[in-house]
Amino acid sequence: MQIAKVRGTVVSTQKDPTLRGTKLLLLQLVDEQGQILPEYEVAADSVGAGIDEWVLISRGSAARQVMGNEQRPVDAAVVAIIDTIHVQDRVIYSKKDQYR
Amino acid sequence: MQIAKVRGTVVSTQKDPTLRGTKLLLLQLVDEQGQILPEYEVAADSVGAGIDEWVLISRGSAARQVMGNEQRPVDAAVVAIIDTIHVQDRVIYSKKDQYR
Amino acid sequence: MQIAKVRGTVVSTQKDPTLRGTKLLLLQLVDEQGQILPEYEVAADSVGAGIDEWVLISRGSAARQVMGNEQRPVDAAVVAIIDTIHVQDRVIYSKKDQYR
Amino acid sequence: MQIAKVRGTVVSTQKDPTLRGTKLLLLQLVDEQGQILPEYEVAADSVGAGIDEWVLISRGSAARQVMGNEQRPVDAAVVAIIDTIHVQDRVIYSKKDQYR
Amino acid sequence: MQIAKVRGTVVSTQKDPTLRGTKLLLLQLVDEQGQILPEYEVAADSVGAGIDEWVLISRGSAARQVMGNEQRPVDAAVVAIIDTIHVQDRVIYSKKDQYR
Repeated sequence: MQIAKVRGTVVSTQKDPTLRGTKLLLLQLVDEQGQILPEYEVAADSVGAGIDEWVLISRGSAARQVMGNEQRPVDAAVVAIIDTIHVQDRVIYSKKDQYR
Repeated sequence: MQIAKVRGTVVSTQKDPTLRGTKLLLLQLVDEQGQILPEYEVAADSVGAGIDEWVLISRGSAARQVMGNEQRPVDAAVVAIIDTIHVQDRVIYSKKDQYR
Repeated sequence: MQIAKVRGTVVSTQKDPTLRGTKLLLLQLVDEQGQILPEYEVAADSVGAGIDEWVLISRGSAARQVMGNEQRPVDAAVVAIIDTIHVQDRVIYSKKDQYR
Repeated sequence: MQIAKVRGTVVSTQKDPTLRGTKLLLLQLVDEQGQILPEYEVAADSVGAGIDEWVLISRGSAARQVMGNEQRPVDAAVVAIIDTIHVQDRVIYSKKDQYR
Repeated sequence: MQIAKVRGTVVSTQKDPTLRGTKLLLLQLVDEQGQILPEYEVAADSVGAGIDEWVLISRGSAARQVMGNEQRPVDAAVVAIIDTIHVQDRVIYSKKDQYR
C-alpha cells in the first residue's frame, strides 16, 4: 500500500455503468517523511476519507477486494484512513495532531 | 485510475481475434494540474470518448471488468469521461468550460 | 497497451514446459512520436509479427487472455500489428508507408 | 520479490473491515548492496518481522496468497525474514551478524 | 518478460509456509545490449538456473503459473534459461560463447 493525501474529487456522468455511486477521490502520494510526491492517483473511496486526510491506497486487483468494487473496473481504492505512523520510536504522523 | 487526454486512434487488422470491434484510443497522461506527462497509453474505449476529452483510465486486470472486455487481452481501458476535477475549493478542470 | 517495435528473438531450450512452441520476441518500446524508448520487453507472439513492425503489447495478466497462453507464465504478449496511428488529424505511423 | 527493511508501523481504525487485525508495516526498499532506496511500501505482515530486519515483500495479487489475506484489499505482504544473501561467493547480508 | 542475470541466492527460515523448498535467486536486470541495470529482482526458480546465466523472468500473477507456485505468494519467477538473443541479424548473446 502507499500513503496518500486526499486532495479533491473527480466527477463523471458518462462512465462505465458499474461506477455509478462510486466516490472517486484525487490523491497525491506522499513519502514516509510526509513529502508530497509528484505521483497522484484517482481511487474509489468507501471508507469516507475527507480532504487533507492521510490514507492508505491499494492498487491493482486488490482494489476490487473492497466490498462493492468486485465488478468495477477500478485499479485503486482507499482502504484505510491513517491514525498514526511510527518510524523507529518516533511518531512521524498523527491524525489527531494534524487536526487539533 | 489515471487522468488522460484523448489524442488519437490506433488501427490494426492483424490482431488477436477477440479485439475485433474494439476501439483503441491513444491517450496521453496528464498530471492533476493538467500538464501533459511523457507517458502514454493505448486503451480500449467503450464509453465513447472523443479527441481532446479528459478521461479516467484503469490499467491491469481492471480493464477486463468493463463489459465486453472480459476475454480480451487488454491491459488498459477508458472507464469514464471526466466532467469536473476539484482540488480543495478550486475547479481545476471542467469539461463544459473546455468546450464552450 | 504500449506501442513497441520488433527487434529480434529470444531462444531457450531449458524453460518452463508450457513455453514450448511459444515464439518470444524482443521488442523495444516507442513513444507516440515513434522515438525509441530505453524500455524493452520480451513478449509471446501469436499474431505473426516480423522484424521492424510496430505492434501493440499487453502486459500483466492480459497476456494470458491470448488463446494458448492461458496456462503459460508469460507477463507480456503481442496482441496486434499496427496499421496506422492517427493523432488529431495527422497520420503519425502507417505500416504501408514504412514498407513500400 | 523485493528486499526491504522494516522501519515502522501504520495504525488505522477507520478502514476496510477485512483489515481488522492485520499488522501493517512501513518498509523501505533496499538494493542488493543494502543501500536504502527512495521507494517505500506499507505491507501486511504475518511472519512476525521486527524493526530493522530485512525481509522479502511480494506485491500485487501475490500478497493475497498469504493465508488470511485472501479477501483483503492488500497489494503488498511480507513473505519472509531474510537470513542471508549471497552474491557470487560473498555473503552480503547475514541477519546473525547484524544482530550480534 | 525481462532479461536478468543470476547473481546470488536469498535464504530464509522464517517465512510463509508455502515457500518451503522454493529456491530464491537474486537477479539483476540487464538491457537488450547486456548492460546491467540498477533494477534487481528476487525470483522463485524451478528451471535450475546457475550463477551468471542469463534468464527470462516473469512478474506479477504470471509467476504463479509455474507448476508448484500456484499457491505461493511469489510475484516473480525464472521461466527460461536463455540460449541466444538475436537482434536483427546479429547474435547479441549466446550462452555457449559465454561459457566456453
